[in-house]
Amino acid sequence: MPRYKLTVDYDGRPFVGWQRQDNGPSVQGVIERAVKAFSGETVTIGGAGRTDSGVHATGQVAHLDLEKDWPAATVLGALNFHCLPDPVAILACEKMHEGFDARFSAICRHYRYRIVNRLAPLTHDLGLAWHVKKPLDAAAMHEAAQVFVGHHDFTTFRHSRCQAKSPWKTLEAFSVRREGESIIAECSSRSFLHNQVRSMVGTLRLVGEGRWGPGDVAKALAACNREACGPVAPPDGLYLTQVDYRPAEEDAASLAAYRAGLAEAAGEEADEAVGD
Amino acid sequence: MPRYKLTVDYDGRPFVGWQRQDNGPSVQGVIERAVKAFSGETVTIGGAGRTDSGVHATGQVAHLDLEKDWPAATVLGALNFHCLPDPVAILACEKMHEGFDARFSAICRHYRYRIVNRLAPLTHDLGLAWHVKKPLDAAAMHEAAQVFVGHHDFTTFRHSRCQAKSPWKTLEAFSVRREGESIIAECSSRSFLHNQVRSMVGTLRLVGEGRWGPGDVAKALAACNREACGPVAPPDGLYLTQVDYRPAEEDAASLAAYRAGLAEAAGEEADEAVGD
Repeated sequence: MPRYKLTVDYDGRPFVGWQRQDNGPSVQGVIERAVKAFSGETVTIGGAGRTDSGVHATGQVAHLDLEKDWPAATVLGALNFHCLPDPVAILACEKMHEGFDARFSAICRHYRYRIVNRLAPLTHDLGLAWHVKKPLDAAAMHEAAQVFVGHHDFTTFRHSRCQAKSPWKTLEAFSVRREGESIIAECSSRSFLHNQVRSMVGTLRLVGEGRWGPGDVAKALAACNREACGPVAPPDGLYLTQVDYRPAEEDAASLAAYRAGLAEAAGEEADEAVGD
Repeated sequence: MPRYKLTVDYDGRPFVGWQRQDNGPSVQGVIERAVKAFSGETVTIGGAGRTDSGVHATGQVAHLDLEKDWPAATVLGALNFHCLPDPVAILACEKMHEGFDARFSAICRHYRYRIVNRLAPLTHDLGLAWHVKKPLDAAAMHEAAQVFVGHHDFTTFRHSRCQAKSPWKTLEAFSVRREGESIIAECSSRSFLHNQVRSMVGTLRLVGEGRWGPGDVAKALAACNREACGPVAPPDGLYLTQVDYRPAEEDAASLAAYRAGLAEAAGEEADEAVGD
């Protein structure tokens, strides 16, 4: 039974999120329906990140098992054909070893958050960026963002209904820069808590507007209290841009170890894969 | 009677184009309705470029006369409020001398055309870029684009119903570059013929795909025959990004000369302002 890795790009606006739910169309549902239409097979696909309603992706990753051994290029073309007219596109399809798991094999997830910082309402970017009217100081936001980098208890920056066992995460990098009227924030971590990126970006906005200093961000992080978080940024500006995986040989060994429960001892981050 | 210069950004998808028409909503109509709602005045606004249906702008310029002498910031805020929920935004509003004319005072118009060059269907960019599946060679397109730079008879690259008196135009610059999966073409001219940018970009696509060489573009230009043009690019990827104006003092003198008919002798480009 071949396993395929799909790299997925989608416009999150019409969806209740990545994950199949009863209350509306999901990205997962669109792809599973496309698989059914193309191959006749009823499948459940696993994604690297459970993006929320309205959150976008340019590099979400999912895996898919099919009974029949189709060439990867055939699967790619057929899924793109059957996903239409929904705004979901498969950018790449590769055959993988059976140990590959889009969620558990991931070693780093990358998110981008885009703010359009101008007085005038959004036009082309409506739903695709967060509109902030007050002038933002990107350099101050970047400096404050460094407070988040490293191994921290992110209780302040997780959704109150976040289901992760532990609030500890290791943020690898967090950069904020201005590009014309856009403010681009990019952050990378093995995994994120629910609403973590949007909570951090919403808080950095207070710094960009001059209402908070970097010291206030450090205090909010140290508080380990959801109420210390700034107003959470809307889903509109958030994009899951890339997921990194370990090489296949490490994957097999690591997955076996994980399944044997050893990963639990090795760290708190192995089982988390939510991302916004 | 104060005259205001408006810098306008819009998503062209829902509109029949910039210009007010009987067959559907126009950008001009949205702004004129916003002026009426805000000031009670019935006005006709003049734009720098008559963008076609589905063509976008990030820097269209229009001028507006009002009876009452409002502060520019008030006009800006009120128009943005009353343009909602249409995807039309006023980026800037300035009071101008009465000789300023968005169309006739313009000395250079800048257009950007964006192609998304990938196999997978578009998601976020649907209607905001041209989707070309075959790999494009941006360097070859750039080289071929230089054929268009300078003073030429652009009969091959104008709409068959283009109303300009002369097909001669002077293209100041034309660059094509790759940015990830996007191909960005930018060109500048005092004025353009109807469909000129889309005709040139559609022809350069043949070069990018390797079907035409730069010599074929030169031949098509020299043919001065609409049938020598490649398939015209769709409106989706076209943006009017900027319009440059001469200083106010030159403007007054030049406008007087133009109105006296002297401009006609000075060159064939003074009265053209269409742009896509």
